[in-house]
Amino acid sequence: MQNRAFFADNGTFCINVISSPGSGKTTILSRTVRDLEGGLAIGVIEGDIRTDTDAQKIRAAGAAAAVQIETKGACHLSAEQVTRALAQIPVAALDVVFIENVGNLVCPSAFDLGEQARLVVLSLPEGDDKPIKYPGTFARADVLLINKMDLAEHVDFDMERVISHVRSLRKDIEIFKVSARTGDGMDAWYDWLIHKTKSH
Amino acid sequence: MQNRAFFADNGTFCINVISSPGSGKTTILSRTVRDLEGGLAIGVIEGDIRTDTDAQKIRAAGAAAAVQIETKGACHLSAEQVTRALAQIPVAALDVVFIENVGNLVCPSAFDLGEQARLVVLSLPEGDDKPIKYPGTFARADVLLINKMDLAEHVDFDMERVISHVRSLRKDIEIFKVSARTGDGMDAWYDWLIHKTKSH
Repeated sequence: MQNRAFFADNGTFCINVISSPGSGKTTILSRTVRDLEGGLAIGVIEGDIRTDTDAQKIRAAGAAAAVQIETKGACHLSAEQVTRALAQIPVAALDVVFIENVGNLVCPSAFDLGEQARLVVLSLPEGDDKPIKYPGTFARADVLLINKMDLAEHVDFDMERVISHVRSLRKDIEIFKVSARTGDGMDAWYDWLIHKTKSH
Repeated sequence: MQNRAFFADNGTFCINVISSPGSGKTTILSRTVRDLEGGLAIGVIEGDIRTDTDAQKIRAAGAAAAVQIETKGACHLSAEQVTRALAQIPVAALDVVFIENVGNLVCPSAFDLGEQARLVVLSLPEGDDKPIKYPGTFARADVLLINKMDLAEHVDFDMERVISHVRSLRKDIEIFKVSARTGDGMDAWYDWLIHKTKSH
């Protein structure tokens, strides 16, 4: 995989971010960029069917680099699209490149983009049955952010059920409970990210 | 389209239901089945990548018929899968057949299942940018349920922005604001459903 070799050559850690539409991928990445500014140099490749609003948000958050891919209808990013996007950012100067995939809990999981780690986001309002209904996506994840913890009092979500299903699919997955809106729980995710970036 | 002719021959109204994972499709259909019991004879074809838990929920709600299609990884239902499922339910005895598609805001929109109407569900926690980011899905919808209105105080969601974008994509779309959890707003949706079922 050409992209994986390119990241390795440049000493850059790449994470492919997958979730349903509206789980909070862009909010998580914006907050991560803002909170780690001065610590990690972060670039983001944004995948969307239409619009470049997410790349604009990421730039506003202060990312070292942000580029938008519009898939024009396609339901996932391809490695070739990522290769073309990588030519538009200064990869060697970045510690981390996030690839925010198209909002889709199914199709992106089957496509290797050359990443070194895969992050899945699940938000509380989506419900606690998602790992059992979309097992392929969770089985291939290295890290899971359970987002929108600030809504915990207002929705039905059996956290133990989710964690138990996810671990049955991927025993050694890292799991962090966060609210990207309030910032609660984000520090543990940052610690993991910094550690992986420095040790990969 | 064979399925469309089959529904017409049997005087049955068919609705293809599309949304992101966790928008509340199954909760909406369960409540609709329960609240309209004795009024409309409703059958449901459930599409999921894995598990038959949704068909179980729909049966528990009292549906006249419910059948599960497991797509085994596929990201949308096909007309052929629906044809096979229709042979397992008494279509002529049903007023309405709902086809609950795989949770995916992208791929299902490109596949005609032979339905007479298409229902899209968008829930408040998904965010108000979804119509502009997934225009193809909203442009092909006949009716939109904006669900989880009970969370309105707890999430950021610009209702006017959403309605304006949706109407720019599909001028004559019917829009209902509902909470399938509390039942608020469901009566207007039932009125539309009953009217369409009797007049199609």
